[in-house]
Amino acid sequence: MMKFEFKAVGFIRTEHKELSGSPIQPAYAKDNTGKAEILLEYIPGLKDLEGFSHIIIIYVFDRQQQGDFKLHVVPFLDNKKRGVFATRAPKRPNRIGLSIVKVEQIKHNMIFFSGADMYDNTPILDIKPFIPDFDGNEEYKIGWLERKIDLSEKKNSDDRFR
Amino acid sequence: MMKFEFKAVGFIRTEHKELSGSPIQPAYAKDNTGKAEILLEYIPGLKDLEGFSHIIIIYVFDRQQQGDFKLHVVPFLDNKKRGVFATRAPKRPNRIGLSIVKVEQIKHNMIFFSGADMYDNTPILDIKPFIPDFDGNEEYKIGWLERKIDLSEKKNSDDRFR
Repeated sequence: MMKFEFKAVGFIRTEHKELSGSPIQPAYAKDNTGKAEILLEYIPGLKDLEGFSHIIIIYVFDRQQQGDFKLHVVPFLDNKKRGVFATRAPKRPNRIGLSIVKVEQIKHNMIFFSGADMYDNTPILDIKPFIPDFDGNEEYKIGWLERKIDLSEKKNSDDRFR
Repeated sequence: MMKFEFKAVGFIRTEHKELSGSPIQPAYAKDNTGKAEILLEYIPGLKDLEGFSHIIIIYVFDRQQQGDFKLHVVPFLDNKKRGVFATRAPKRPNRIGLSIVKVEQIKHNMIFFSGADMYDNTPILDIKPFIPDFDGNEEYKIGWLERKIDLSEKKNSDDRFR
């Protein structure tokens, strides 16, 4: 089995200490601000990032045990079992999370952003600029999620992935 | 130092055997088809994925040595040094890559997609559905890349990250 080791390059600071009640996605967390604190040794890597309105944060769902996953999950926006790769649920074969968030300010080793749907102290693996021309920018279909997204509703998580 | 271990859940099959000459991003690789071959044990996790037009593939830049990174890099679309977190360059503190690609067909354990900018045999860490309403869908700014993206040009990689 092929294994890969990565290390935290920083940590996310948010007000979400608990799974239950946290917003399920950045789109439902527009008013929630968070902070990505990058370890001091990586500060030079943040150069030029301030020109981008959105960044992709790749992080670890560290409240999940690695290896404790389900291939079928009932996601927050549904009541049917879906294949885990067709969802953003945290109980995945590799407990890797991804959020595309809006940058508000970058200061020293801190990226302040809105759309904070992660827990406090989440370990960050990578930061990448979001570039619509690279990242799709086409006609999309969203499968089982069609007609399930209503951003005017408040969508917080419950206990299902505890 | 906080470390995390992940394992390959599958492998990407493309025609790109070499760094030099591979397309630099899915947007420049629309005619390049690839295949994500998921390990047989994870097949149930692919359920419901066929309804999504685009998926996010998270993978390992396995031609890079983990730990062999640069905080300032000259990216393919530029001739100036940029902070690595403001680029998609592979020599990153964690050698994690991400591509948003268009699904053409899903068959058994294989996802056929267009926009294949990865090398052959790249280890896959995760597959997630791309959901525009979650993943931005807003007004974007793209910093140093402004005016550097012209999708009518052919953009292949060169040797700079070897």
